[in-house]
Amino acid sequence: MSLSIRPATAADIPQILEFIHQLAIYEKEPDAAVATAEDLLRDGFGAHPLFYVLLANWNEQPAGFAFYFFNYSTWLGKPGLYLEDLFVMPEYRGHGIGKQLLVELAKIAQAKGCGRMQWQVLDWNTPAIEFYESLGAFPLTEWETYRLVGEGIASLAQLNASHQTEM
Amino acid sequence: MSLSIRPATAADIPQILEFIHQLAIYEKEPDAAVATAEDLLRDGFGAHPLFYVLLANWNEQPAGFAFYFFNYSTWLGKPGLYLEDLFVMPEYRGHGIGKQLLVELAKIAQAKGCGRMQWQVLDWNTPAIEFYESLGAFPLTEWETYRLVGEGIASLAQLNASHQTEM
Repeated sequence: MSLSIRPATAADIPQILEFIHQLAIYEKEPDAAVATAEDLLRDGFGAHPLFYVLLANWNEQPAGFAFYFFNYSTWLGKPGLYLEDLFVMPEYRGHGIGKQLLVELAKIAQAKGCGRMQWQVLDWNTPAIEFYESLGAFPLTEWETYRLVGEGIASLAQLNASHQTEM
Repeated sequence: MSLSIRPATAADIPQILEFIHQLAIYEKEPDAAVATAEDLLRDGFGAHPLFYVLLANWNEQPAGFAFYFFNYSTWLGKPGLYLEDLFVMPEYRGHGIGKQLLVELAKIAQAKGCGRMQWQVLDWNTPAIEFYESLGAFPLTEWETYRLVGEGIASLAQLNASHQTEM
């Protein structure tokens, strides 16, 4: 029984896409994952990557991944590590693979001088929440996330804000 | 009465720090903003910036700022624009400065091929929430943000996860 974790390369893109699809199924939005291999190659494996991936193998079989990037804390004046996706295939759970992925991310966060690690979890995902809290993570209960997408961005970009409105 | 918005340069760092401090006061954590000019210079104005800043001037006086960076959507296969801080000094509110900062950010999001703009708001900040919703933004009510800081990261990094634990 052996676990190995390594940074992904461009050759791993098909496997990364497979994990992204499996995670979308788990999150009950199987059709929402439309990213292509070209997208991931362009954005993650060029001179200025927008993201990074750790891959976990269990007995040399692809078992899970962590997809992350860096954000920034204006209060700390330090980067933060933001974990976008953490996923272990159902048949490989119970071996501590998710935990070891987080351990590796914590090492990366330290090496990069990050003041924080942060991620989001669906509020119905009780096993994940209990797992995260067991590691010392805490919820930012006061903060609400807002999102603007496609049409909303386009409309806003075309707006010439009146100088009489609020804020 | 004139509003101008431009990207910040390293020469603007003292002004950016001033806005960060003012925002920390508004968010009721005046001592939490410990970032220094050296931090911002190193992380925002080198060859690979971790963040970007737009500055708004009202009648040529510094009036507000937007502090942002890019994240990534694994489902869309596109970058997203993440707005970390948006702030207008109280004496300059009511002129549409915050809105125009968001308009400029929406233009940047479009130019960079972003599928999303995203930010967080304190759940007691009703004026901000109403303002965001008036622009078409919506809350991600199902998602909870978790954070791990200093000691928690250090402990996790030193852990050799047991391969018998959950996940």
